[in-house]
Amino acid sequence: MRSDNNSGISPEILQAIIDENNGDAEAYGRDDLTARSEAVLQSAFECEDLKAFNLISGTAANSLIIATLSPTFGAVFCHQDSHVNGDECGANEFQSGGAKLVPLKGRDGKITGSELEEAIDWFTIGEPHHSQPSMLSIAQSTEAGTVYSPDEIHDLSTVLKKHNLKLHMDGARFANAVAKIGCSPAEMTWKAGVDALSFGSTKNGTLGAEAAIFFNGCDDGSFIYRRMRSGHLLSKMRFVSAQIIAYLENDLWLKNATHANLMAEKLYQGVKNSDHIKFSFPVQSNVMFAEIEDQLREKLSTSGFQFYSKKNGDISTSRLVTAFNTSPELMDEFIEIVRALNNKPL
Amino acid sequence: MRSDNNSGISPEILQAIIDENNGDAEAYGRDDLTARSEAVLQSAFECEDLKAFNLISGTAANSLIIATLSPTFGAVFCHQDSHVNGDECGANEFQSGGAKLVPLKGRDGKITGSELEEAIDWFTIGEPHHSQPSMLSIAQSTEAGTVYSPDEIHDLSTVLKKHNLKLHMDGARFANAVAKIGCSPAEMTWKAGVDALSFGSTKNGTLGAEAAIFFNGCDDGSFIYRRMRSGHLLSKMRFVSAQIIAYLENDLWLKNATHANLMAEKLYQGVKNSDHIKFSFPVQSNVMFAEIEDQLREKLSTSGFQFYSKKNGDISTSRLVTAFNTSPELMDEFIEIVRALNNKPL
Amino acid sequence: MRSDNNSGISPEILQAIIDENNGDAEAYGRDDLTARSEAVLQSAFECEDLKAFNLISGTAANSLIIATLSPTFGAVFCHQDSHVNGDECGANEFQSGGAKLVPLKGRDGKITGSELEEAIDWFTIGEPHHSQPSMLSIAQSTEAGTVYSPDEIHDLSTVLKKHNLKLHMDGARFANAVAKIGCSPAEMTWKAGVDALSFGSTKNGTLGAEAAIFFNGCDDGSFIYRRMRSGHLLSKMRFVSAQIIAYLENDLWLKNATHANLMAEKLYQGVKNSDHIKFSFPVQSNVMFAEIEDQLREKLSTSGFQFYSKKNGDISTSRLVTAFNTSPELMDEFIEIVRALNNKPL
Amino acid sequence: MRSDNNSGISPEILQAIIDENNGDAEAYGRDDLTARSEAVLQSAFECEDLKAFNLISGTAANSLIIATLSPTFGAVFCHQDSHVNGDECGANEFQSGGAKLVPLKGRDGKITGSELEEAIDWFTIGEPHHSQPSMLSIAQSTEAGTVYSPDEIHDLSTVLKKHNLKLHMDGARFANAVAKIGCSPAEMTWKAGVDALSFGSTKNGTLGAEAAIFFNGCDDGSFIYRRMRSGHLLSKMRFVSAQIIAYLENDLWLKNATHANLMAEKLYQGVKNSDHIKFSFPVQSNVMFAEIEDQLREKLSTSGFQFYSKKNGDISTSRLVTAFNTSPELMDEFIEIVRALNNKPL
Repeated sequence: MRSDNNSGISPEILQAIIDENNGDAEAYGRDDLTARSEAVLQSAFECEDLKAFNLISGTAANSLIIATLSPTFGAVFCHQDSHVNGDECGANEFQSGGAKLVPLKGRDGKITGSELEEAIDWFTIGEPHHSQPSMLSIAQSTEAGTVYSPDEIHDLSTVLKKHNLKLHMDGARFANAVAKIGCSPAEMTWKAGVDALSFGSTKNGTLGAEAAIFFNGCDDGSFIYRRMRSGHLLSKMRFVSAQIIAYLENDLWLKNATHANLMAEKLYQGVKNSDHIKFSFPVQSNVMFAEIEDQLREKLSTSGFQFYSKKNGDISTSRLVTAFNTSPELMDEFIEIVRALNNKPL
Repeated sequence: MRSDNNSGISPEILQAIIDENNGDAEAYGRDDLTARSEAVLQSAFECEDLKAFNLISGTAANSLIIATLSPTFGAVFCHQDSHVNGDECGANEFQSGGAKLVPLKGRDGKITGSELEEAIDWFTIGEPHHSQPSMLSIAQSTEAGTVYSPDEIHDLSTVLKKHNLKLHMDGARFANAVAKIGCSPAEMTWKAGVDALSFGSTKNGTLGAEAAIFFNGCDDGSFIYRRMRSGHLLSKMRFVSAQIIAYLENDLWLKNATHANLMAEKLYQGVKNSDHIKFSFPVQSNVMFAEIEDQLREKLSTSGFQFYSKKNGDISTSRLVTAFNTSPELMDEFIEIVRALNNKPL
Repeated sequence: MRSDNNSGISPEILQAIIDENNGDAEAYGRDDLTARSEAVLQSAFECEDLKAFNLISGTAANSLIIATLSPTFGAVFCHQDSHVNGDECGANEFQSGGAKLVPLKGRDGKITGSELEEAIDWFTIGEPHHSQPSMLSIAQSTEAGTVYSPDEIHDLSTVLKKHNLKLHMDGARFANAVAKIGCSPAEMTWKAGVDALSFGSTKNGTLGAEAAIFFNGCDDGSFIYRRMRSGHLLSKMRFVSAQIIAYLENDLWLKNATHANLMAEKLYQGVKNSDHIKFSFPVQSNVMFAEIEDQLREKLSTSGFQFYSKKNGDISTSRLVTAFNTSPELMDEFIEIVRALNNKPL
Repeated sequence: MRSDNNSGISPEILQAIIDENNGDAEAYGRDDLTARSEAVLQSAFECEDLKAFNLISGTAANSLIIATLSPTFGAVFCHQDSHVNGDECGANEFQSGGAKLVPLKGRDGKITGSELEEAIDWFTIGEPHHSQPSMLSIAQSTEAGTVYSPDEIHDLSTVLKKHNLKLHMDGARFANAVAKIGCSPAEMTWKAGVDALSFGSTKNGTLGAEAAIFFNGCDDGSFIYRRMRSGHLLSKMRFVSAQIIAYLENDLWLKNATHANLMAEKLYQGVKNSDHIKFSFPVQSNVMFAEIEDQLREKLSTSGFQFYSKKNGDISTSRLVTAFNTSPELMDEFIEIVRALNNKPL
């Protein structure tokens, strides 16, 4: 429950690694498998003009994409609670050579078109004292566990296009969002105006495999050099590529994400009426935030449930995360503990 | 009224430049005058362990000090409306190699100790996902034209010391703050816990002269290299040093600032009861913000008064700035226009 | 023969990954296995005060170590043909925030103490116009395939210590050097004055596992943040740690490296008397450079031997690399082709 | 003799500053005078499509131009003894976000087309391991005091154009080169293939005024932001602009440079036959390098002549620099000392 990063490797993914270990191949992504992983992504996203660069870290994908899309003097809009703003130790400021991240508020971890418009309007285009608005980075699903609808994304991209800005999607949990909405990957991204996507898979069952994806010519040709000089060009790339192929094959990615989402939904339905736990945001993917009363939190902890908690004044908020390998039995156990407490007066 | 940067050079300063042009001297700050300018600052600040590095731009002073005091992965707290956050085109992210500026709200352009404490608490020390809190940068006087009292500064430094963080003061309009409070430069800075000061003079009558000042050993020895590699080591430094000496001599700096403050106060007292102009913040230095009704703003403009205005929704806020060379007659003229309008119903 | 990066995964390493995939564990290196991998390295290097940070790319290890050891305004000495200078797309300039790489000549890919001394002497300490000498980075084995003796390393560190500079060793092929010399890892590194080591294993049989190692307190505490903000903190770190443990266990690393070295030696002995191939440097590890006559190069190519070649004027130099999985039969085949040609006049 | 940076301000320049101090004007280069300084440069360079950005430091001009013309992963060729390589404390690596400076040898401080071609050929275009060649930066006059002919510059630009690379000229002593060659500024720059010029004046009589000049559309629009975020947008810009106008007016720049060149020539002719002084390079501008015997150097020093000397093994090389205000009498005095010694056996 602590993090979907704690889960191991999906059996199908591990098998793909084993299968690939049958001889030599060109290093640094010049192998056939890496070319095939790009083709597989082009097909999954119904986009021929798609460029994919395999990586092994989501922060690498985010920060290298942002560095590619924003000039060094750019203003990059993002949600104040987003991973790119708060949980990457300044990676995006660093990789971009000093771009300014502009944190926006927004309900349920999401930004609306009008909030974005207002933020952009603060800046004066052409005024050298101002960082120049360059792009928006949203997470899908968000750091709050909520999910943008394609329409909401389209609203944002409409504002952005008006100002000639780019749209990046941090898809560390992209599969969970697609599984939730039930639309196609294309509808969730480039058809809604997304220019580049951090396509994550590590939190959803791979050992370590992420792809920085550019749609429709948004890479200016600099990415291969940015990847290398930041130390992210892997020599034995083919083993990352093998994971990406296996991840998309037979819809493993959606299968895993759907399961994780279901486990979250199961837990939520099981405890939502409790007085001792109060959910902070709509539950829409595999990540939930909740205020859990101290007594209950201790009981859960005693029973082996671990999760991040953050105190803000008197209120402590906990993050609950399910994964591809979370069992229904574990959810039942959690629910049982909550219900047991609920029957007793505090 | 548009900016104190628009004013020319105080006659005393210009004379000092002329006087210094009487022969050769060592370049790059190895001359006698530059050594003397540091001694003059040590004396003015009653601080023997003071290091001063002459520069010609306030943004250079701010960003080089921040780069010196914060690690590249640091979180630098500042007011959201501050110059370092909004008006330096990302200079501080750039010079520091990617430090994160964390914008705080705060009434009247100022930050309180409890607001700072709350902001620091968000970050987990030792957690690599988080930028690590390193320092606070405040402006004195602030971008809103308000002034911190030494006690307010001390409150902030108390919080900072508890967390082992540094305190930088952007003193682009330091003289105006000192003139307002009437305390000593030492009481306003190191005695209140300030570690480094951007000592500005350009807005208050010099051609271009700023000093990055470190109190009590806060420079780690890197500043001279940072200044050079950012292109800020001037060859004919002595002409900057001459300005700083002349600026402090005979209290020219306080004389100029006191005059500018008085002109602001005069204007404020003259129009504060008007229905057509509403001041946004307490008037405490030479910078004022006010909502000026459209009709009045046009009348002022027609009469030659120019100033920055920013629309935020329906409300337009204008910035009014006085300088060392603003005449009382000009203020009377402004007041007259406001009063004339006030007698007539809108 | 093209690169040891082309080889797959040693069976022992793959098994270790499979074995570790048996449940959840804390992400981001907070797991037990990662702690154990550090302990294993401490033991292998006979150094309790050793800090190890696991990574998956050698360029990441090099550039992050250099960024840690050198100030942003530092001068980093290195061999002009070294990987850090010529083959990392400016990674070291980038990660360090702009440090200057100073390329030195030196016979056989190695730098001598007197060459280093002369290079350091060019710079004036304390002169802000000059980048300030901060460190030397050597490769062991070198980009030329040669190997420093511990005494040669000690000579370099003696010069460095006199000037208070640090010594980094790029050990992408560290195992091959240790296998060649037959000394202990400690004798090759900290006992000879090395402050930090990029401990590579990927070229010698792992999927992807490198460790940035600091000896005797040389990490200033900043590495964990530098790793994160450059996108190099892996979520499922334990699978990297498992590789490092398996790599050191039962001396797999030396076994693999010894084999690769032997294959190189076998090839060299088999063809060194040929008129058609002329070795550029002493053959001391698993990397060889040779001028191969066009006719021979074509014959080898036709038979499936591939390798990098670089034309410099009329002379074309080829790089031959053996690996842990290079077979003696393949070497025999190569030798046979050379010998067959040798009997015929060109 | 130590440096032309030690000289003060030409009377004409100082007068221009005084004259401009007659009222307020828009800050940050939005004033009329700044627009006029650009027009004056357009006229002087016979180039309507010329963009000029005023600055106050040559290192700022060099590093900001290089950052504009080279991608962050670029390879920037330069002479190994050039100011951009050796005397700017890594400014160019820093401003460019980590571009690699590639130092080339070359006789008399100059690079030839074939040397450049060979250096470019080392790099593989499109290979992510390699920094990608982006530009050449030459100095005119060079750090050795020599001067490129327009034909030599054209040779270099021919090579560059073939590879689609840019040409920057560091013109810290541009006037001395133009005065020496006698060609037009246009012939020396864009007509010979120069894309951008650091147009220096500080060493030749201004207080502090440099212009970053882009010919024929070579600025991509980013310069105004780069200048600001590096702290180089001056608030009272008009006083820099006034200097540039006065510098070009009535050919003051050529008058000053011609004088400095003549003084150097006078000194050279007066002492060239001495056994005690040996010139390192052809004397072509106002900078000379010479091996001066210890005894002579001491005599000169006793008489008040100061200059930089650098020991390289047993040989000490001294730099002699004349300026716009160097008197013929001073040269005579120097010559006299050399000749006096020459008559006596050592």
